[in-house]
Amino acid sequence: MKSTENQEQIRRWQAQLSRIIFGSDTTMGKLFDVVLIISIVLSVLVVMLDSVKSIAGSFGEWLRMAEWFFTILFTIEYFLRIISLRRPIFYIKSFYGIIDLLAVIPTYLSLILPGSQFFLVIRLLRVLRIFRVLKLAQYLGEAEFLIAALSASRRKITVFLFTVMTLVIVVGSLMYVIEGEENGFTSIPSSIYWAIVTLTTVGYGDISPKTGLGQALAALVMILGYGIIAVPTGIVTAELSRSRDGEYELRACKTCKAKDHDMDAKFCKHCGSQLPDFRRRTKKF
Amino acid sequence: MKSTENQEQIRRWQAQLSRIIFGSDTTMGKLFDVVLIISIVLSVLVVMLDSVKSIAGSFGEWLRMAEWFFTILFTIEYFLRIISLRRPIFYIKSFYGIIDLLAVIPTYLSLILPGSQFFLVIRLLRVLRIFRVLKLAQYLGEAEFLIAALSASRRKITVFLFTVMTLVIVVGSLMYVIEGEENGFTSIPSSIYWAIVTLTTVGYGDISPKTGLGQALAALVMILGYGIIAVPTGIVTAELSRSRDGEYELRACKTCKAKDHDMDAKFCKHCGSQLPDFRRRTKKF
Amino acid sequence: MKSTENQEQIRRWQAQLSRIIFGSDTTMGKLFDVVLIISIVLSVLVVMLDSVKSIAGSFGEWLRMAEWFFTILFTIEYFLRIISLRRPIFYIKSFYGIIDLLAVIPTYLSLILPGSQFFLVIRLLRVLRIFRVLKLAQYLGEAEFLIAALSASRRKITVFLFTVMTLVIVVGSLMYVIEGEENGFTSIPSSIYWAIVTLTTVGYGDISPKTGLGQALAALVMILGYGIIAVPTGIVTAELSRSRDGEYELRACKTCKAKDHDMDAKFCKHCGSQLPDFRRRTKKF
Amino acid sequence: MKSTENQEQIRRWQAQLSRIIFGSDTTMGKLFDVVLIISIVLSVLVVMLDSVKSIAGSFGEWLRMAEWFFTILFTIEYFLRIISLRRPIFYIKSFYGIIDLLAVIPTYLSLILPGSQFFLVIRLLRVLRIFRVLKLAQYLGEAEFLIAALSASRRKITVFLFTVMTLVIVVGSLMYVIEGEENGFTSIPSSIYWAIVTLTTVGYGDISPKTGLGQALAALVMILGYGIIAVPTGIVTAELSRSRDGEYELRACKTCKAKDHDMDAKFCKHCGSQLPDFRRRTKKF
Repeated sequence: MKSTENQEQIRRWQAQLSRIIFGSDTTMGKLFDVVLIISIVLSVLVVMLDSVKSIAGSFGEWLRMAEWFFTILFTIEYFLRIISLRRPIFYIKSFYGIIDLLAVIPTYLSLILPGSQFFLVIRLLRVLRIFRVLKLAQYLGEAEFLIAALSASRRKITVFLFTVMTLVIVVGSLMYVIEGEENGFTSIPSSIYWAIVTLTTVGYGDISPKTGLGQALAALVMILGYGIIAVPTGIVTAELSRSRDGEYELRACKTCKAKDHDMDAKFCKHCGSQLPDFRRRTKKF
Repeated sequence: MKSTENQEQIRRWQAQLSRIIFGSDTTMGKLFDVVLIISIVLSVLVVMLDSVKSIAGSFGEWLRMAEWFFTILFTIEYFLRIISLRRPIFYIKSFYGIIDLLAVIPTYLSLILPGSQFFLVIRLLRVLRIFRVLKLAQYLGEAEFLIAALSASRRKITVFLFTVMTLVIVVGSLMYVIEGEENGFTSIPSSIYWAIVTLTTVGYGDISPKTGLGQALAALVMILGYGIIAVPTGIVTAELSRSRDGEYELRACKTCKAKDHDMDAKFCKHCGSQLPDFRRRTKKF
Repeated sequence: MKSTENQEQIRRWQAQLSRIIFGSDTTMGKLFDVVLIISIVLSVLVVMLDSVKSIAGSFGEWLRMAEWFFTILFTIEYFLRIISLRRPIFYIKSFYGIIDLLAVIPTYLSLILPGSQFFLVIRLLRVLRIFRVLKLAQYLGEAEFLIAALSASRRKITVFLFTVMTLVIVVGSLMYVIEGEENGFTSIPSSIYWAIVTLTTVGYGDISPKTGLGQALAALVMILGYGIIAVPTGIVTAELSRSRDGEYELRACKTCKAKDHDMDAKFCKHCGSQLPDFRRRTKKF
Repeated sequence: MKSTENQEQIRRWQAQLSRIIFGSDTTMGKLFDVVLIISIVLSVLVVMLDSVKSIAGSFGEWLRMAEWFFTILFTIEYFLRIISLRRPIFYIKSFYGIIDLLAVIPTYLSLILPGSQFFLVIRLLRVLRIFRVLKLAQYLGEAEFLIAALSASRRKITVFLFTVMTLVIVVGSLMYVIEGEENGFTSIPSSIYWAIVTLTTVGYGDISPKTGLGQALAALVMILGYGIIAVPTGIVTAELSRSRDGEYELRACKTCKAKDHDMDAKFCKHCGSQLPDFRRRTKKF
């Protein structure tokens, strides 16, 4: 009997802990989340500052200590998350579970592999939780909207990227033959790198054509790149416009059949009769 | 009795002055505005020329004098604006009031802090008045329209910028580890600077990857940046098309005060009551 | 009597000449136009080649001769155009009349002012006639369509450019103060040049920020430029889409009131009844 | 009799071979395609690696051997394709036939003309078959869609490119006169190259204006280029939106053969006769 009571107590305690750590509807839960986000941002700042020579020289000791402090803090937090859940495996295998683990490993790894502590910036991904904390449901809706528009045009984008990759490899090889090593095009891979730099209009200038023929081909690639940039923009724009239209079309007035209502409309704007409930796909994070 | 008369006279004088300075419907008012705008443009030109070594060498004395002349002129104007109003505090706290003050301070400051006179270019913001002077209401309407479209998509843009910032920090850190100091990536902040230069397709070339792995990652970032540029364009375009279709924000329901109705709506979509006729909001600035 | 006859003969001769030179509906007229366009392209090529050191060294004499040959040819053509018309003043004052004159002056000018012959590339503008010659009315229609869309958004573009110019001047001045002469920002005008190079994502790299604060401000400008590029694109796209919609709206079926017909539709696509005639704005060039 | 039997047997054998090589509906056919695509990708990789100095130094022998291995393999495949068909001339003259031939020639040519083996990257175009193999009909549909949208706006794009070319030649010549050889603008063609690099916002920085006037003109060109980039984007976006709305080209009137009907049209807009039901064209490649 005592063991059951004990177990019950542990469960209650577990539920309470889980509510603080995973929820954000209690005062303690909110406080936990705010402290967590501030810690994440601070720890990323520490990693960044540690890479700046002049700062690392003067405050290196302190930064290293801060790094270990945050790592131990996040390790404790990670274990608290696991023991607060009945079936921790779902959390461990989730997106956030993996990020949370990856956010502490590099510090321990840096004991064996110096330099790996710079991978700690992955901690930044943990800040994505901020959207949940601040109940920025609208922002999540917008993000979802953008992702939906992008994924709806993913086939067009694949075709587009495949075309660009083929173009870039062919042009890169041509330039390697035309310009050659003496003009900086030392190999086909590095010529392909040049072609990407040019086609995307980045244009570092670390490699640039010197011969007349090379410059003519480069000019052609640039004008092509100029036109090509219109294609992904056109795809995404058309999709964004369509997605919005699409959302409208989901709603139809039963009295006058008009379909052009906004997502938040409760009454038909043409005849004033009530509209059916609109329910968005349920989201969970 | 005399003091009241006196006060009356001062008030009349004040009203007249205010009409000349703030209004542009009298001949004197227009003349004042035109002279003011020419003075502003000239004073900005003086500041610019003063920074060019070869010109400052020959005409330095004259430019310094012109600078003081304009500063004193604008100081007098600022005080005239204040005394011409009954409640000057509203002007002082307004956008133009602050700009007008900031437009004279740097010259006085330059007596103590040499070099601060170059901040005088802030005077340029005063030229924004030109729209009011030339009665370019239509231009203001267009500006308002653009701002409305941008602010309607502000949530999408926030999500987008947040994603870009995260991407840039992660990529910058990766490149710092891959390329290292010997290839110009001296610290994580400067690697993040490189990532921004690359992702936005600016591509100075002051820092550029040298190793094969670094160039491969850079190529990936460029193609990503190429695709990413489509997103804000798509957002703004979709919003601009929609705003024109709708101008929805200008319509208000008299029953429930909701304002987000489409241009073609006859009934409030929230409460079902009839909407007033559509009429474009008259603009004043 | 003889003088009148003579005059008549001259008129007839004039009419015939004018038909060959200005028209393109006779065999001779077409031949004239084709020869003219080939001459123009060749003469521009000659000017270009003349500027290339290695070619000018070997073939300088020949190129100079070709240049004079084309100049004399175009001078004769210019006078023929004038004498073939009854009221040549309309031609002389027209766009093509001015271009035709400017296309011959630089060669004569180069006798006094060496180097001015390179302005002969203005001859290229004469090639615009090609559209008329090849009766590419559809191309002219498309060009007109693009120009209409751009000019419809000219107010928005003016507001946009004004904002960009203000931004660029303020940012340029800030960078001049932050970076200073030792980092390549030698004067405010050259800092403004840097700001334009950065904001438009050109990014030569001839001037680039060196200090941390400068790089941070530059990064901000880049991200801003990244977002700002969306605005003109959005404006033009919305206008292009609208123009097309607008053209549709000009056509309404009298039977079923549907308005979404194409420009070339003769019958209503919804009820099959005849549509009213559509007549485009008459164009003349 | 025996010869006919023999011929029959050869035909059957031919049909079977053709089914394996050209088809992808049998197990053997699929296997053949998969092996082929892997070989193509590997052979392109070999060519690329061969151009990298450090790799060619250590593994040059092996890479050369692999190159010959793939070339002989593709040569055998080419002849198999020819003998497996009854009328091989159609294959030889087709797009894939030419690509397949060009994919083997450079290796043989490299015996006479060293360096030509780098043209082997043309083999990459053979990978386009992957779409057929993986039965990615949807991807082909998307590609077709993009091509249709681009070709629908080909006239607008021609007008646009013509304008850009004229602009670039005029600006290039102006810069040659303004900046001259001492600042890197060595000839009009190389100044035109600079103008293209600038207008397309690539901005290598290998050539950049040094004089004040040159920088001012360059700034103008950049802002122009900034605005100009909006035009192709606007064209393509408007076309993509329209194509989706319409897919007009897929509908044909049985009476007057006109094909440009909208998706929602019930009657032919040219002759008023009823249109067939809308059904998406089945695609085959």
